[in-house]
Amino acid sequence: MRYRLTIEYDGGPYVGWQRQPNGPSVQAEVERAIEAYSGEAVTVFCAGRTDAGVHATGQVAHFDLERGDPAEKVQAALNAHLRPAPISVVTAEIADADFHARFSATGRAYLYRILNRRARPALEAGRVWWIPAPLDADLMQEGADRLLGKHDFTSFRAVNCQAQSPVKTLERFDIRRSGEMIECVVEARSFLHHQVRNMVGTLRKVGEGKWTPDDVTAALEARDRSAAGATAPPDGLYLTRVEYGAQ
Amino acid sequence: MRYRLTIEYDGGPYVGWQRQPNGPSVQAEVERAIEAYSGEAVTVFCAGRTDAGVHATGQVAHFDLERGDPAEKVQAALNAHLRPAPISVVTAEIADADFHARFSATGRAYLYRILNRRARPALEAGRVWWIPAPLDADLMQEGADRLLGKHDFTSFRAVNCQAQSPVKTLERFDIRRSGEMIECVVEARSFLHHQVRNMVGTLRKVGEGKWTPDDVTAALEARDRSAAGATAPPDGLYLTRVEYGAQ
Repeated sequence: MRYRLTIEYDGGPYVGWQRQPNGPSVQAEVERAIEAYSGEAVTVFCAGRTDAGVHATGQVAHFDLERGDPAEKVQAALNAHLRPAPISVVTAEIADADFHARFSATGRAYLYRILNRRARPALEAGRVWWIPAPLDADLMQEGADRLLGKHDFTSFRAVNCQAQSPVKTLERFDIRRSGEMIECVVEARSFLHHQVRNMVGTLRKVGEGKWTPDDVTAALEARDRSAAGATAPPDGLYLTRVEYGAQ
Repeated sequence: MRYRLTIEYDGGPYVGWQRQPNGPSVQAEVERAIEAYSGEAVTVFCAGRTDAGVHATGQVAHFDLERGDPAEKVQAALNAHLRPAPISVVTAEIADADFHARFSATGRAYLYRILNRRARPALEAGRVWWIPAPLDADLMQEGADRLLGKHDFTSFRAVNCQAQSPVKTLERFDIRRSGEMIECVVEARSFLHHQVRNMVGTLRKVGEGKWTPDDVTAALEARDRSAAGATAPPDGLYLTRVEYGAQ
């Protein structure tokens, strides 16, 4: 039986989603919980392999179990065995045998949160990018608009990115301010490694007034990682939703 | 020179605002930071002495310093010395010599957050009261309405409360649902010890359908702590604002 999970986690304590030799991972925690409950050693596949420190409210994953327990029972058992890790199975359902969390996905949405105030974060420490200097969110939106659509995103791609092509189509890039918080919502079918963080790190320069929106266009057209801004920290990034619509 | 601070903190690691022999307190952390920066050992007075585990986004406090540094300098120095404690001085300003964070206050506002979903919290662990059973927020609002105005709140007062009178005037008690989150906003000139948590713990029974709004009225009129619901946990409670308007 194949199960599909929606998972929320605090990425702070983890080396990332993916199982790695150098530290605890979300994947290893979830697989450990599944084995503790079912006795079956399985591999869990996710939609978006988030990096160290990156959070999720809507990660999607799947795995197979020999025993055919109802989805509600699987959810309750996993949440009991995951405790006290900051990982929670928000929904669980039985999936078609050909459902694949990664390869069936047709869209991914991320949220990037910037706390833009003089004082460092207390309650939101580790959950936001703290930028004390005032940012102009309207200018950042103008810069973001330059990245919408289908482009070669080489300038915003991590050096170690393993995607075959640097061409992606950005469907949405909304920047909105709510008090001290600036929220950036980004959607695409898929993203390059570090693409969201590299785009946000570049828009920071626009928000500070150091770059114009034209500079963003120039950075995009340069197809050179060194032409764009620095990588924003993982703290502010959340994988919020994965779509499985028509292909 | 008297300084007035607005302070944000995660109450999780602390025995409460107040300095106590049995563990770390927010007050002790702030006083330590002031002494580290200025060399002066001072006492800091706050508007609302939050309990262990209770958070604040808008606590107000004051203290006096011999040296007359500008408020911006005091804020920056305190935030540097508070690091990495989850306490942040959000604003600092020079206050009148007769300003007193506690005795000058004319109103206090609290937020209580309930995460109402089947799955336990991951990102919001320690920041919400997790209630898996479905709650009817509209019914909770009807119950809350019964507590508005001037009453003897003995039924919602901690046994060890040291207030002279159990009579308080509740100015606002709004319950609103936003997806999985139920937010309760409460305002009064002042509160009894545990009053907000005892009121929220009582409204939970209404939200679950175990009590009617009439039962809330009956509990209030009983003037007996055992007639009301259990104390809600500190995790969901935030001191959000202190007013210093006309007396």
